[in-house]
Amino acid sequence: MPPPPLLLRNVRPLGATAVDLLVQDGRIAALGPALEAPAGCVVEEGGGALLLPGLVEGHTHLDKTLWGLDWYRNEVGPRLVDRIDNERAFRRASGHDAAAQSLALAKAFLALGTTRLRTHVDIDTEAGLRHLEGVLRTRDAMQQVQQIQIVAFPQSGLLGRPGTAELLDEALARGADVLGGLDPCAIDGDPVRSLDLLFEIAQRHGRPLDIHLHEPGAMGAFSLELILDRTAALGLQGRVAISHGFCLGDLPERECEALLARMAKLGVALITSAPAARAVPPLLACRRAGVTVLGGNDGIRDTWSPYGSPDMLERAMLIGLRYNLRRDDELAIALDCVTEAGARGCGFEAYGLAPGCRADLVLVEAQTVAQAVVARPPRRLVVSGGRVVAREGALLPGVVPA
Amino acid sequence: MPPPPLLLRNVRPLGATAVDLLVQDGRIAALGPALEAPAGCVVEEGGGALLLPGLVEGHTHLDKTLWGLDWYRNEVGPRLVDRIDNERAFRRASGHDAAAQSLALAKAFLALGTTRLRTHVDIDTEAGLRHLEGVLRTRDAMQQVQQIQIVAFPQSGLLGRPGTAELLDEALARGADVLGGLDPCAIDGDPVRSLDLLFEIAQRHGRPLDIHLHEPGAMGAFSLELILDRTAALGLQGRVAISHGFCLGDLPERECEALLARMAKLGVALITSAPAARAVPPLLACRRAGVTVLGGNDGIRDTWSPYGSPDMLERAMLIGLRYNLRRDDELAIALDCVTEAGARGCGFEAYGLAPGCRADLVLVEAQTVAQAVVARPPRRLVVSGGRVVAREGALLPGVVPA
Repeated sequence: MPPPPLLLRNVRPLGATAVDLLVQDGRIAALGPALEAPAGCVVEEGGGALLLPGLVEGHTHLDKTLWGLDWYRNEVGPRLVDRIDNERAFRRASGHDAAAQSLALAKAFLALGTTRLRTHVDIDTEAGLRHLEGVLRTRDAMQQVQQIQIVAFPQSGLLGRPGTAELLDEALARGADVLGGLDPCAIDGDPVRSLDLLFEIAQRHGRPLDIHLHEPGAMGAFSLELILDRTAALGLQGRVAISHGFCLGDLPERECEALLARMAKLGVALITSAPAARAVPPLLACRRAGVTVLGGNDGIRDTWSPYGSPDMLERAMLIGLRYNLRRDDELAIALDCVTEAGARGCGFEAYGLAPGCRADLVLVEAQTVAQAVVARPPRRLVVSGGRVVAREGALLPGVVPA
Repeated sequence: MPPPPLLLRNVRPLGATAVDLLVQDGRIAALGPALEAPAGCVVEEGGGALLLPGLVEGHTHLDKTLWGLDWYRNEVGPRLVDRIDNERAFRRASGHDAAAQSLALAKAFLALGTTRLRTHVDIDTEAGLRHLEGVLRTRDAMQQVQQIQIVAFPQSGLLGRPGTAELLDEALARGADVLGGLDPCAIDGDPVRSLDLLFEIAQRHGRPLDIHLHEPGAMGAFSLELILDRTAALGLQGRVAISHGFCLGDLPERECEALLARMAKLGVALITSAPAARAVPPLLACRRAGVTVLGGNDGIRDTWSPYGSPDMLERAMLIGLRYNLRRDDELAIALDCVTEAGARGCGFEAYGLAPGCRADLVLVEAQTVAQAVVARPPRRLVVSGGRVVAREGALLPGVVPA
């Protein structure tokens, strides 16, 4: 049942002049001065607040989070393999519940204005499809109020544990939206075989790809070229995303720009958490080249890392800090990474503040977009698909079925 | 008039077992289980909350901030000189009020638990001592509840504008606590003459030094050596601090370590905002070498930068992110930068949670120190010098004289 019409009075879309905004059938129907409220319409007084489109999380791991649980004491070693092994041991010992945990975090995201979200979900021969089943339950529970894209992610690699490919296959058959990949050299040790198999699975299901590429420098560039070769050969323009892509932050400028030009031509998006502690892809050069760059937390409060937050305005601020974006026009880029570019990179449809778009709306007390990014003000109101779902940072009762 | 005795029941100092904490005459008198409340004692129930010592801001610019004003649209160019010139033009046009602005931000710091604070104050031939006078008023107003150290800071350089040295001299005579300096090569263009003059002024007043050193790589290392030479020659062990010290993040490891060893020997502290967008001094190597590293925001919401926050737990988090501190024992280091090491580096006395220390206390809802850093929970209670000054992030009425 679609929600009743909703009229937001006196709101400033992305800081522009105040208007009224009318929502009908869950979509934005009109924006303009002094709109008339149709019969049965709910009216919300915006009070001149800043209006943002629903925020977009481009890369997280809902299934791993310990959000809301007792504090996890992190004593993990520094290598990638330490973190993978530690997580596996933790799960064995703790009986980690991916359904409950992913739901808790998805709700926290929604309360802070994130209405669309891409999450990777671990698929491996130890956990099987248990995490997927949990996150599918969360996706169902949130269906009306949050669009969740699930990436079937081989956290332990694709080749190392026989049976993983079959599990990914089954994950896609069961409803995962995207196929994930991971470091074909550094983790799988056989990049050609790894990527050939990965692309073959994606092709069989007609699904897009989102590949974690942590590999640095020349190794990462090598893997990236292999990925781009297959994207071109298989006609997957606009269907492949690279997560992290740290190598792009290590390369000589010309090599980097050649890769970016190729990515842009093939519509390969780049998803970054903008980590402060390592080289990152050059955001402004990516955008100049025509590569869509979107932002994400990566893991939030899990055995990998204690950091992260379901507040995507905080992620925009961290992107701004990482890339030294100080001017107002630059801070608009930081916001873009968690709004328009986020939606475009993930392929979320009917996104934005124009008539016809899904009515995913966030009201905050801020004078400008730049202020919203640096101050991360409380979310006064969150609307998803035309429904008021949260006020003052708290979900309304009944928004998510019990 | 000293505040009445105060008994905090059931608090966990830095996450340790719950105790009671008794404050008398503004100092911590005792910690232990089930302490008895003396006559006339105010009792606060801690409910098992985490107890932190008052937070310490090691480097900010209270006089520059636009905190609480209308949003400032930043359209500034990228160079240091662009920012200096832009600020000067802004001040001429806006009639910026350093007294009101510094007070607003100092109060925001206190409400979030910062009881000790070092601020640089611009001294130049255009503003004269106007900023100093403003911040001196703020220091007076906050005297009972916040210790503010004022650094007389030649933002436009020491040599370029004749009359600056005399103004610094006067600033110290009028009550500035510390003498500031700035890039003796890059800004002053004559490092030997600049530093000789700077140290001469400091010596004349018997004041410590805190020198902004943005200069990168070899140039910064050269200036740093000159500073250390003078520190040694004048017997200023423990009286000199370097702010930023970016060069330490650029140098080959051995050169860096040689400088750190010398800094440690001379008791030269390093103050960092841990910026995400550039090379930074190696925190762990500094600490291993015996160099005290403390944290600060640098400017907050000013014409230089829109970023920054009076929440020093957020600064600790940003330090943690910049240095990839993920383990609980590492996050304790991030907190140290805004607590113990902060106080030590600035020379704030009677600091800490031991009997005899000034009762500067912060209660937060967190299980561990690590959680306090990454979650930055609301400040349930802030005590300064034994007085309850803030609850739930808001100053109590009457804490700061109107």
